[in-house]
Amino acid sequence: MTKRLTRNDIKQLDRLYRMQLMNTLPGIKNASLIGTQDQEGQSNLAIFNSVVHIGANPPYLGFILRPLTVNRQTYQNLKATGAFTINMVTRNMVQQAHQTSAKYKPGESEFAATGLSEWQSDNGLPAPYVAESPVRIGLTFEEEQHIKANDTWLIIGAVQEVFFPEDVVLDTGQVQLEKLETVGVAGLDGYYGLEFLERLAYARP
Amino acid sequence: MTKRLTRNDIKQLDRLYRMQLMNTLPGIKNASLIGTQDQEGQSNLAIFNSVVHIGANPPYLGFILRPLTVNRQTYQNLKATGAFTINMVTRNMVQQAHQTSAKYKPGESEFAATGLSEWQSDNGLPAPYVAESPVRIGLTFEEEQHIKANDTWLIIGAVQEVFFPEDVVLDTGQVQLEKLETVGVAGLDGYYGLEFLERLAYARP
Repeated sequence: MTKRLTRNDIKQLDRLYRMQLMNTLPGIKNASLIGTQDQEGQSNLAIFNSVVHIGANPPYLGFILRPLTVNRQTYQNLKATGAFTINMVTRNMVQQAHQTSAKYKPGESEFAATGLSEWQSDNGLPAPYVAESPVRIGLTFEEEQHIKANDTWLIIGAVQEVFFPEDVVLDTGQVQLEKLETVGVAGLDGYYGLEFLERLAYARP
Repeated sequence: MTKRLTRNDIKQLDRLYRMQLMNTLPGIKNASLIGTQDQEGQSNLAIFNSVVHIGANPPYLGFILRPLTVNRQTYQNLKATGAFTINMVTRNMVQQAHQTSAKYKPGESEFAATGLSEWQSDNGLPAPYVAESPVRIGLTFEEEQHIKANDTWLIIGAVQEVFFPEDVVLDTGQVQLEKLETVGVAGLDGYYGLEFLERLAYARP
């Protein structure tokens, strides 16, 4: 049975029900861990489901940040140091990755709390990578856009380096996500594995 | 074997290889069809993999649009009419959905070309839905943000109505995507089914 909800119906929903519904309706998103550190080198790690491709040449990625009305360590850190990392979540990391969404006190690192391992690249980027993650992307802060509709932010990073297992990339450049066992997330709490279906040719009329 | 590419290495890659690599490295994205029409009622349908949740209350969604240096019918239409729809792609629609990425001539509707069925809601929103899609979201244009880094755009829509099968939504609001058989896409051409893994409780330190 098809249900229809108008904007006004959505407004009337229970707060938590609305949050889950509106977060899952647009479908699957990638589960990514964003790593940052403050100017004293204290690391932070947080799970995000809003990483989006912005461009390939030059390479840029973006993500959506909720209003800055409360302290957002990821944002404070990437503005202070100018750097952050994006790390793919795989099946065997789901529990630890999800646990980074807990509200730890400032000074408590999510790496220590979850058991994920901090790894620094030798390129001098002041942001920690997740050692367990097979795909690690290092970025510098490039641009921020304030979304007036609801006071959220689009943060854009310039990709400075990428790490990935060479043997999962096809000759044509595609990463075989199923071989990496990366996961998607629906809403805030539902984790999904990926089953490869097919690769389709460039479409022509 | 872990491969490392720097920003400069990425710049040196073959153009198509780089496009595929940089599009698949950030992981899975949802496959969505965006429906619009021009002021004469001529419909347009295009596949996007960049739909992102912006807010639940009030409900907003966004998507990334490439530079407007060529004619982008989706953009022209949603600016002219103020409306667009987002429709989930399911397993049995993958071929047709992918085919909408072909460059049809103005005046040729992707609905007719792919065999997907146009459906209009009775709310007067001047944008076509995809009848085959189990989740259909109607939006009005709300805001656009110009991304200076590479001349792309973030388009924000205000959700005006949603349609979904009532029996796939949990009492707590989550849509069970696996029951809808919605698909994800990696890069531009790799389609994935979703395998439900687990739902995790709200994380506390």
